Amino acid sequence: MMGLMRVKWQNCVRKIRFLQTRPQSSSNQILISPSSLTSLDLPNDDTWTCNSSSQTTLIPTVNTAKVIDGKLISMEIKSKIASEVTRMKKCLGIVPGLAVILVGQRKDSQIYVRNKILACDQVGLNSFVTELPTDSTQADVCKAVMKFNKDPSIHGILVQLPLPQHLDEEEVLGSVCIEKDVDGFNPLNIGNLAIRGGEPLFTPCTPKGCIELLIRSGVKIMGKNAVVIGRSNIVGLPTSLLLQRHHATVTIIHAFTENPQKITCDADILVSAAGVPNLVRGKWIKPGATVIDVGTSPVEDLSCEDGYRLMGDVCYEEAVTVAAAITPVPGGVGPMTVAMLLLNTLDSAKRVLNFI
Amino acid sequence: MMGLMRVKWQNCVRKIRFLQTRPQSSSNQILISPSSLTSLDLPNDDTWTCNSSSQTTLIPTVNTAKVIDGKLISMEIKSKIASEVTRMKKCLGIVPGLAVILVGQRKDSQIYVRNKILACDQVGLNSFVTELPTDSTQADVCKAVMKFNKDPSIHGILVQLPLPQHLDEEEVLGSVCIEKDVDGFNPLNIGNLAIRGGEPLFTPCTPKGCIELLIRSGVKIMGKNAVVIGRSNIVGLPTSLLLQRHHATVTIIHAFTENPQKITCDADILVSAAGVPNLVRGKWIKPGATVIDVGTSPVEDLSCEDGYRLMGDVCYEEAVTVAAAITPVPGGVGPMTVAMLLLNTLDSAKRVLNFI
Repeated sequence: MMGLMRVKWQNCVRKIRFLQTRPQSSSNQILISPSSLTSLDLPNDDTWTCNSSSQTTLIPTVNTAKVIDGKLISMEIKSKIASEVTRMKKCLGIVPGLAVILVGQRKDSQIYVRNKILACDQVGLNSFVTELPTDSTQADVCKAVMKFNKDPSIHGILVQLPLPQHLDEEEVLGSVCIEKDVDGFNPLNIGNLAIRGGEPLFTPCTPKGCIELLIRSGVKIMGKNAVVIGRSNIVGLPTSLLLQRHHATVTIIHAFTENPQKITCDADILVSAAGVPNLVRGKWIKPGATVIDVGTSPVEDLSCEDGYRLMGDVCYEEAVTVAAAITPVPGGVGPMTVAMLLLNTLDSAKRVLNFI
Repeated sequence: MMGLMRVKWQNCVRKIRFLQTRPQSSSNQILISPSSLTSLDLPNDDTWTCNSSSQTTLIPTVNTAKVIDGKLISMEIKSKIASEVTRMKKCLGIVPGLAVILVGQRKDSQIYVRNKILACDQVGLNSFVTELPTDSTQADVCKAVMKFNKDPSIHGILVQLPLPQHLDEEEVLGSVCIEKDVDGFNPLNIGNLAIRGGEPLFTPCTPKGCIELLIRSGVKIMGKNAVVIGRSNIVGLPTSLLLQRHHATVTIIHAFTENPQKITCDADILVSAAGVPNLVRGKWIKPGATVIDVGTSPVEDLSCEDGYRLMGDVCYEEAVTVAAAITPVPGGVGPMTVAMLLLNTLDSAKRVLNFI
């Protein structure tokens, strides 16, 4: 059994390595972020010099931060994805497919899924939704995943989170085959995101979107102090790991952090993913910092179409008077997350079909 | 191929999950650190409260830090490992085995391997060394690994690093089957170390030793500012991840960090793993901090038996006047790393033999 297991593991690692090393076309590159994380690894990564210069941060000349328009940037990216989908269809007669599994009746989850499907339509990706009742068993959900795992017309599988409490989220996510894990939540992907020399098959969508926003906004990451608020498996943790791969000096703060404000005040790049409206006040922000607000807490608002509106973690009115640049909520990170999901699905199809 | 691959992956994940969930005996617990990382995950991990209290750190009443005696602590741990090895031999007639692969003639590597073999002897573990010439091919090294992968008398495999430059370290390490990866360097292990809810099969030895030293020295980790200097895959990165699982607020600094001293000065726990002698001066240390010096740079010294002595990253003479507690070099982290290697090998054998 051990021997068989070993051989399976070796085959698995070999196959993943093969997938990882397929050539990527640079002419069709959609993001400005590098397509390979290992390309970020520098030969002198571990060479220390005495670098005690004080930090130079651009302080805005006017007291209003530049608004980083995630909606606009995501539209540019989606437009390029659409071109690539068309090219693939023309060359191979194949359209990449995304499968979404939604368990239960959470209104916010339903809206998120609806938006993802709409986005698939916009760029020409096929999409398939399996809706399961709240009282579905673990086996029901895993069966739905397995069906998509087997289906060659599906290149990405997304399980909408959170799942109802009685389900084992880890097991469900673990049942998504790693070649279709477009969310990038598989522990092997996270490990490869973390380690120098590692190349995950998929980088989680929200962190990937945050980095693209920073790079497109001209924010230097290398050597800068980056503080990530929140350490969730789906945002905080992978964002911190990705910022580190980009050579930022990263601190993660969380609910047990003593005096978080003292730490955030030193951040050149502040990414908040705590899910607590107005947690980050103006005085938490270093003048001239770039603020990426990942928070999207639904707050009841009957004047809105869906009966609620989304609130970020950052007190926007205060932040714009201190920061150099900031993402709004909505219209900042959210649309980028969706765009990255589409891109991961496209890349997954390209990889498996060896389409350059 | 994709389908087969998926089934293999699922089997692999299932097997690993099975191994992970085997019961661990608490009566035979050797470390004070918790044997399960998921036991550290708290239900209110993500519940934020306004916690802006200033930090309280014990400032030593005398200007000499307590020396954390890693040699003594490692001897206590090794004594317990020896008892467990004896018990296993008595009950099952089986002695756990560690295999070490050494490529090339690096003197420091030869000494490290010799020390590990001696330590195996001390606790009654079987050990096997394969020495390969410097000009070995990738295939030669992987073949040696595969031989041990297949051998049921081997429960842990260690490839002594660094490998000669012409070899692909990642591929060699990846060829060690995950159930025997007592170094814990497999990306899947690192991923499971990183994510909340993840339980790596093996925690890397040096980080595991550092945490045990902290806990045995009565140092509170939760909520404290921990700074890790260096982000190597084998020490800095996994140490930062493990400290985070223990709910510290963690910052990793590295060669590109601007003004590292400003950051280290706020550290309640400072772990240095840069490999640069005397990088950490007294003024880098917060009064009352605990300093863990992982650095072991060999410096020529003909008065020593081996022709060199090991130097830490920390300027010890200065640090003892500022810190509350400090590990010496040698005699601090080094012996703990070896003890954790023995423990991981014992635990591996226990797991595969279902010995409680």
